[in-house]
Amino acid sequence: MSRVELAFPVSSAAAFRAELIAAGLLIPTGVDGLYGRGAAYETVADALEAAITRLAAADAPERMRFPPVMSRQEFIASGYLKGFPHLAGTVNCFCGNEADHRRMLACIEAGEDWDDLQQPSEVVVTPAACYPVYPVVAAQGPLAEAGRLVDVSSYCFRHEPSVDPCRMQMFRMRELVRIGSEAQVLAFRDGWMARASRWLETLGLPSATAPASDPFFGRGGKIMAAGQMEQLLKFELLVPVGSTSEPTACISCNYHMTHFSEIWPLRDAAGGMVRSGCVAFGIERLTLALFRHHGFDARLWPAGVRAELFV
Amino acid sequence: MSRVELAFPVSSAAAFRAELIAAGLLIPTGVDGLYGRGAAYETVADALEAAITRLAAADAPERMRFPPVMSRQEFIASGYLKGFPHLAGTVNCFCGNEADHRRMLACIEAGEDWDDLQQPSEVVVTPAACYPVYPVVAAQGPLAEAGRLVDVSSYCFRHEPSVDPCRMQMFRMRELVRIGSEAQVLAFRDGWMARASRWLETLGLPSATAPASDPFFGRGGKIMAAGQMEQLLKFELLVPVGSTSEPTACISCNYHMTHFSEIWPLRDAAGGMVRSGCVAFGIERLTLALFRHHGFDARLWPAGVRAELFV
Repeated sequence: MSRVELAFPVSSAAAFRAELIAAGLLIPTGVDGLYGRGAAYETVADALEAAITRLAAADAPERMRFPPVMSRQEFIASGYLKGFPHLAGTVNCFCGNEADHRRMLACIEAGEDWDDLQQPSEVVVTPAACYPVYPVVAAQGPLAEAGRLVDVSSYCFRHEPSVDPCRMQMFRMRELVRIGSEAQVLAFRDGWMARASRWLETLGLPSATAPASDPFFGRGGKIMAAGQMEQLLKFELLVPVGSTSEPTACISCNYHMTHFSEIWPLRDAAGGMVRSGCVAFGIERLTLALFRHHGFDARLWPAGVRAELFV
Repeated sequence: MSRVELAFPVSSAAAFRAELIAAGLLIPTGVDGLYGRGAAYETVADALEAAITRLAAADAPERMRFPPVMSRQEFIASGYLKGFPHLAGTVNCFCGNEADHRRMLACIEAGEDWDDLQQPSEVVVTPAACYPVYPVVAAQGPLAEAGRLVDVSSYCFRHEPSVDPCRMQMFRMRELVRIGSEAQVLAFRDGWMARASRWLETLGLPSATAPASDPFFGRGGKIMAAGQMEQLLKFELLVPVGSTSEPTACISCNYHMTHFSEIWPLRDAAGGMVRSGCVAFGIERLTLALFRHHGFDARLWPAGVRAELFV
């Protein structure tokens, strides 16, 4: 990979966060990695979503939207817990009676644990915007030759409390998901690596593209991550945001091979397993990168950047 | 309350849901009350959000946005679990080592429970869009005389699996939150009751306004609900959607008295407890009401409705 240079001094994650909070862009909630956002921040995040819509419009993706929780059963089937148990969030609910309720309130009052009163529900917090897409497409029957291109956007949960504003526990991920033949998916992924890189340039954000791996859990995970790197399945577009000395992955371009068609019956007309891939835009990281590079007042951003975002 | 008449035959909730799914407006996920949505549905939901922004623009609300999970500590402090333990969703995470992970995967493989391997996290799924607002405003110090008006929007979770598409487990709630003196909050709430009712008329949706109560848990809850009704704290704007024979609450206008300033230090300059209230728009219910009354193709909706939504 080529190094991307920082055009500004690296400050600590905590210092960057403090600046963002002082400016009213982020609103603290008392939980590391969980923030409210002020109007100026949201204006930029909304503009990024709209800009991505325009960027993808020529390909006419099908728009689907899913809530930020998904079916526990589909989540388990997806295999996410094999690779990333430490990042997942399951949702538990109270199914007790009035006596149980009194016990819950007494535990809370006494500062005691009341988790044994909560039961696993049918849902978990969505880990990546594209996860609900695969079972839906599979349920719609064999793919036509053109394959599918789906546009999704969702809040995603990753349990990794951090003071780094680039590492939120709950953040928005916009994705384009390509399902089809190997050639279709690789052309999509590689085409978007180039297109997204040019787009970052338009936004005045220096970037470098590098092979990457997902944060698999444990020692076994290290082997999986190495395999992913070796096979060049994942590329990240890295932008220096300066909350760490390393640049931050703001966009990723992924090839899943047959991972999801081994789980769900994603098939072509001949019954063969199709491939999938996605390009994922980290809306919070891109928003933070823009504020970091162009300043906290979007009205003062370079004309070219404003033209791309605020048409 | 005045009865609102149904302009169409009541079908069962399951039949209405089947129609919405067949039209591609809702996408089933295998979990009752949890749906993906197609592009035509989302276009209307987005248009409703934008129309509410225009409707509220004269009052210049401060825009804040929060993710769909919130601090567990603030959630507990809010008292939500006293009234609605059965609707809440807590988020649990895996904090174990590699041996624990192997045990988790073995349990999943064997179809056994693995909930004992999950620990309560710092967050819960947000129950209502306004809940994160109160501690934030309280932390900003005493209120100026004008009080505050905050515009929020969030996915909200209510654990009530149902085949009725008007009763989703995860749905978007847009809210305007007024914090100030009793006179300010009551004028806001009552003004919005009238304004929202006129707006529904513009949207071609018949409605009636009626005193209401929240779905408090258990026998004690019945007394709280009766008190809320008696004190006229909550009004609902009911629209017949036809998935049940009763009309559906699509907008609610609420007065919280000092509920939240007893929990968080929401104070005026003299140190007195301020009041709060909110008007909450159920985006999914309004979207479904529009499809039900005007048909599944928004391009064919009455000109006045289209003008209000798609400016």
